[in-house]
Amino acid sequence: MYPEFIPVKEAFKIIENIKTEPKKERITLEKANSRVLTEDITVLVDVPAFDRAAMDGYAIRAEDISKASETEPVHLKVVYEIGAGSVYPSTLKKGEAVRIATGAPMPQGSDAVVMHEHMKLSGDVIEIDTPLNAKKDVALQGEDLKKGETILKKGQFLGPHHVALIASSGHKTVEVIKKPEVAVITTGSELVEPSKNLKPGKSINSNKYALKGLVEEAMAVPHLTSCPDNMETLLGKLEYAAENYDAIITTGGTAISRGDLVVDAVNTLGEVLIHGVSTKPGKPVGFGVINRKPVFMVSGYPVAAAVQYDSFVRSYILRMQNIHKKFQLTECTAGKDIKSSKKKQNVIRANFNEDEGVVYPLKTKAGINKSIVLSNCYIIVEEGVGNIKKGEKCKIIKYSSLKVC
Amino acid sequence: MYPEFIPVKEAFKIIENIKTEPKKERITLEKANSRVLTEDITVLVDVPAFDRAAMDGYAIRAEDISKASETEPVHLKVVYEIGAGSVYPSTLKKGEAVRIATGAPMPQGSDAVVMHEHMKLSGDVIEIDTPLNAKKDVALQGEDLKKGETILKKGQFLGPHHVALIASSGHKTVEVIKKPEVAVITTGSELVEPSKNLKPGKSINSNKYALKGLVEEAMAVPHLTSCPDNMETLLGKLEYAAENYDAIITTGGTAISRGDLVVDAVNTLGEVLIHGVSTKPGKPVGFGVINRKPVFMVSGYPVAAAVQYDSFVRSYILRMQNIHKKFQLTECTAGKDIKSSKKKQNVIRANFNEDEGVVYPLKTKAGINKSIVLSNCYIIVEEGVGNIKKGEKCKIIKYSSLKVC
Repeated sequence: MYPEFIPVKEAFKIIENIKTEPKKERITLEKANSRVLTEDITVLVDVPAFDRAAMDGYAIRAEDISKASETEPVHLKVVYEIGAGSVYPSTLKKGEAVRIATGAPMPQGSDAVVMHEHMKLSGDVIEIDTPLNAKKDVALQGEDLKKGETILKKGQFLGPHHVALIASSGHKTVEVIKKPEVAVITTGSELVEPSKNLKPGKSINSNKYALKGLVEEAMAVPHLTSCPDNMETLLGKLEYAAENYDAIITTGGTAISRGDLVVDAVNTLGEVLIHGVSTKPGKPVGFGVINRKPVFMVSGYPVAAAVQYDSFVRSYILRMQNIHKKFQLTECTAGKDIKSSKKKQNVIRANFNEDEGVVYPLKTKAGINKSIVLSNCYIIVEEGVGNIKKGEKCKIIKYSSLKVC
Repeated sequence: MYPEFIPVKEAFKIIENIKTEPKKERITLEKANSRVLTEDITVLVDVPAFDRAAMDGYAIRAEDISKASETEPVHLKVVYEIGAGSVYPSTLKKGEAVRIATGAPMPQGSDAVVMHEHMKLSGDVIEIDTPLNAKKDVALQGEDLKKGETILKKGQFLGPHHVALIASSGHKTVEVIKKPEVAVITTGSELVEPSKNLKPGKSINSNKYALKGLVEEAMAVPHLTSCPDNMETLLGKLEYAAENYDAIITTGGTAISRGDLVVDAVNTLGEVLIHGVSTKPGKPVGFGVINRKPVFMVSGYPVAAAVQYDSFVRSYILRMQNIHKKFQLTECTAGKDIKSSKKKQNVIRANFNEDEGVVYPLKTKAGINKSIVLSNCYIIVEEGVGNIKKGEKCKIIKYSSLKVC
């Protein structure tokens, strides 16, 4: 028999109490996308590192053309040409100009850029008929990033543009949270690899494929193994996983059958803190600790396993990376009567029509695994609420909101 | 000088006209998450493959207990026990029961499962005091998936649960679109790797890091190289990329400076179809074709490059994988006056406050690269609209909506 079922909120608390210290690693910037910073990033070099041309044109001294007009244009002598990456080896003198490309360093002595559109070139002389402010079309040293400035804080989730910013700041490597390594042990003597010729009594192990993808999407590294319903083998695999990885997910073997060994095995090696939560589906979910590693015991039934993973596991794996994601509940209208038991939390696969703001529960059974891909949200009916009538308000979690990105 | 600027919509059309035929590959299911199907998936085996127990309990013949009552309970003899993965070697006879675990095949002759909670066991006899319908707590062969049924269609984007479903259907491998291989050529003699000791005139190549992550997030494989402002080297790299990869992105060298070689190089090897689009920032964007491969010429300025990538490149790379993603424009209220030129499309980095429904444009300059990570959306002001006043409606694209997931 199950031990006492506990309410979902109590289960959350017990699970949250098991803390794991994120590990850190230093990696090259090439690998830093979608990782989480464990250090503040301080700028090592001014960006730009020097005053540079913000436009293609001619670097000049603004004072040289301060009196330029259509009637009295100013003529400057072009003495050099610099492209991006090179520098003017001298100092710009009165009456001189240097042809300059966007991004190239402003010659010493120059302080403005005249765009091609605003001058005339003949031979090596340019004619200018309008004054320019000093600093016109010049990107000033440090105007983007100032040396010593902190530009990103510990805990920042890095996207491509954050990584580019860290590169700009002069860093080649970055310290981030090490991806949690998560053991996935799918249990059940009936489980086999995909085949069109199944032996009697055998079933294809599909949970393995679902959990591999789910763990990867939570930015962790899955380590997969399957295990027959044999206590010694299971103890061996659990022990190995608890020694080598940061968290363990098992599937199957959490109910009360004689073959259901997982809960007993976890109790042998560590401690079972939860077995049975007031939620439907997913009631026989278990949670324990071996060697201070969290062990999530989810059902063998794929639908129950998916709900249990979405309810308890994903957020934990993310928290191991200091990513704190709250479930986003959306309020909408029931498009059909929703059957729900008052005694527990009900998690009902459904389809939400965004335009109508209406949700339609799926008519399905616990064993219909394809229902997961035929739905786009869960209706969450909390303990104590019971049935909801067509037209009444209800709350959903969109599958798309569960993802990190 | 630029050739004529064309409106953004015209640029979209020209780019869309360059079709690429997606390549296909057959991969093992382990790698199928986040890929796109190129075949319909037909079920190879019934799921379940046999009638099986949906609960732990005793497999019985419903007719044996059709008259059971509290005053006249029925007694059945337990003749065997089957766990998941094994089968009952005989046929259940009148008056017999078999202890059975969830998922185990129903013994021949049995047609219902009595749960432990609904019977009493003494020795090898169970006592039942309530009739059961036939098929009670039995998962019927094929009730999840029927052999021959098509369960997923060509073009489906695969998540973890889709992959699990394909496994359940009996498939070990799946045919998907091959990830596009995208060359990223960052040009500019000034570009160097991150360092705190920059030589005069040098700048850190941050675009390389941004584009690597962006291309990966578009589920393609980036191939990075950088290139000095030297025509022969550039031609060599472009030719190599056009021979070996499916698309090319260049950065820098699209303006009119003498060092700006990219557009000329693409014209030498192939054809330039766009150079200059009425959008700000991002105006000098180019697009061409070499060896029937699309070439996106984005700016060297990171902010312009980001806007150009978001406007033109990402959706193309996704389309190469038959993923058709439309920009999701959200209407909201301007929290400040928005300056915008009537003559072109304006793309303004801004922060959208979801709770207020209000957007605040960032006060920034073209060269301030950190503005990308300090903002969470673009305000899009279409050509012809001009300034928008505080309190007026405007349209935004949230960065989060640009991602595929």
